[in-house]
Amino acid sequence: MQGELSGGKVVVAGSEAGILAKGYGRKKDRLELSLEEAAFLFETGKISRIKEGEERELNLEEFLKHALDISPEFELRYLVYRDLKERGYVVQPGGVDFWLYPRGAKPGEKPARYFIRILSERGFLSLKELDALLILARNMRKEPIIAVVDEESDVTYYEVKEAKFEFVEKGEGKAEEIGKAKATLLGDRVVLWDTDLAKNLHINNFYGKLTKEKRLLLSLVEAAYLMKKNVLEIDTGQFIEYASSIESDFMDKYVVYEYLREKGLIIKTGFKFGSHFRVYKAANQKHSSYLIHVLPEEHVFSMPEL
Amino acid sequence: MQGELSGGKVVVAGSEAGILAKGYGRKKDRLELSLEEAAFLFETGKISRIKEGEERELNLEEFLKHALDISPEFELRYLVYRDLKERGYVVQPGGVDFWLYPRGAKPGEKPARYFIRILSERGFLSLKELDALLILARNMRKEPIIAVVDEESDVTYYEVKEAKFEFVEKGEGKAEEIGKAKATLLGDRVVLWDTDLAKNLHINNFYGKLTKEKRLLLSLVEAAYLMKKNVLEIDTGQFIEYASSIESDFMDKYVVYEYLREKGLIIKTGFKFGSHFRVYKAANQKHSSYLIHVLPEEHVFSMPEL
Repeated sequence: MQGELSGGKVVVAGSEAGILAKGYGRKKDRLELSLEEAAFLFETGKISRIKEGEERELNLEEFLKHALDISPEFELRYLVYRDLKERGYVVQPGGVDFWLYPRGAKPGEKPARYFIRILSERGFLSLKELDALLILARNMRKEPIIAVVDEESDVTYYEVKEAKFEFVEKGEGKAEEIGKAKATLLGDRVVLWDTDLAKNLHINNFYGKLTKEKRLLLSLVEAAYLMKKNVLEIDTGQFIEYASSIESDFMDKYVVYEYLREKGLIIKTGFKFGSHFRVYKAANQKHSSYLIHVLPEEHVFSMPEL
Repeated sequence: MQGELSGGKVVVAGSEAGILAKGYGRKKDRLELSLEEAAFLFETGKISRIKEGEERELNLEEFLKHALDISPEFELRYLVYRDLKERGYVVQPGGVDFWLYPRGAKPGEKPARYFIRILSERGFLSLKELDALLILARNMRKEPIIAVVDEESDVTYYEVKEAKFEFVEKGEGKAEEIGKAKATLLGDRVVLWDTDLAKNLHINNFYGKLTKEKRLLLSLVEAAYLMKKNVLEIDTGQFIEYASSIESDFMDKYVVYEYLREKGLIIKTGFKFGSHFRVYKAANQKHSSYLIHVLPEEHVFSMPEL
């Protein structure tokens, strides 16, 4: 089989029907292959020659360089394409970067299940782009996958999913029904002195850290939430302003904390895991269900962060 | 036992000898306690009253607030002090932040084994400070520990150690003795076409990723090192400049890569672990010995990074 490079595609003549049936190319007047498809078929020997114009024949090295000139991130796309083919998937260039079909499926007969966004290990992805991928996925009823090509040409795939927090019915001991007590701001945390309330809040609602002497040490977000719920009274005005002066992202964290607490979830710090919160659905859960990191809307991810 | 607050210390009268023997305080004219020691003895009931001047008696809340006014990060120091005491260690305020003795030891009889630097979860530590801690540790023949107090008042302890890389004798198949071949720069990686050299470099020296067709895909640092070793010839001038334009920290990474390779170590990318390199001492090692992250001298750590 021979191919001819033409306007960012490779047009083939010969035993077209065979490779079309195997999921390569799209049938127009003639069968058109994307650069990745052509490179793969060329490297694996299914295409024997690729010509540029009437005269010039390209070897593999020349073809790959050519493809890179036409398509700036071609080498990344080709590495992901190869990797998926070698894993036995059916891939079609198009969509965000590629469409991915279940093993053995034929494009056209079944819809693609995933779409793939390709990035280099050195690439960046903004939170807004990530959000756009999720909206696109919802509208197209497909699932988004991010494929990251590392320095060593290995590919790591990340499925992206929206987290949905269902309301969890709380047992007895609602914090809001247990009266009110005085607490003291001490540097970057709050001490609750009332030992009964301290035990109640800690044992039934998992707030703070209970000391041996049954005092409760609360974090700033916990204290702010309990103040709002009328459980704590802190002898300082402007608590939110004070907390924000200690933690510049205090309000962002607090908004997320309140949202999750109002769903009946139990929230603890995620510091040991390098994130903001651990989320538990129930008190007897050994491991947390989620780790949550609060980010500003304008955040841009680097790939090792993922 | 009673105490009196005096110039950032608490001076006690009464059964001094007993608590001195238990590792609290330092004997001057009278026994002097640090604020953390006094707070701990006050909260646990060993000190019954603390006075400020002749007249005023402080309750625990007042004493803690007072201590925080005198010493800005007092609440962190106190939380770490309490935590270590409750774990049964002998601690002495002083040094960087605290001295730590083995369980059961008496300060003065045996030297401290560790010194502790205390930081809040929200704190920062520059690479230069970290380096200074290591130099101090070497000079004092002690080991440094970083204690980080998180939002929930839990303390996490990190031992800091200097990594020493011994020279590892390589087996056969030194890369430097296997001739020279042509390679092609393709975007942000390098392809070696010579299948014999590719296999040799990959199997004996663990360079790059070998494709099914026995071509070797090399990262930019690998390619730069093999060029220096006269194994590769790449058809592009200014390779280092080119690589630096793709990765701004290329030279920093390369310097570390070369240093470790010259020690006979095997280096692969650490991308999947969020760091720059994985280091293996031998080819048959299942898990890497080290993960290495290359940082500029002026780097400042935030605590969740640790």
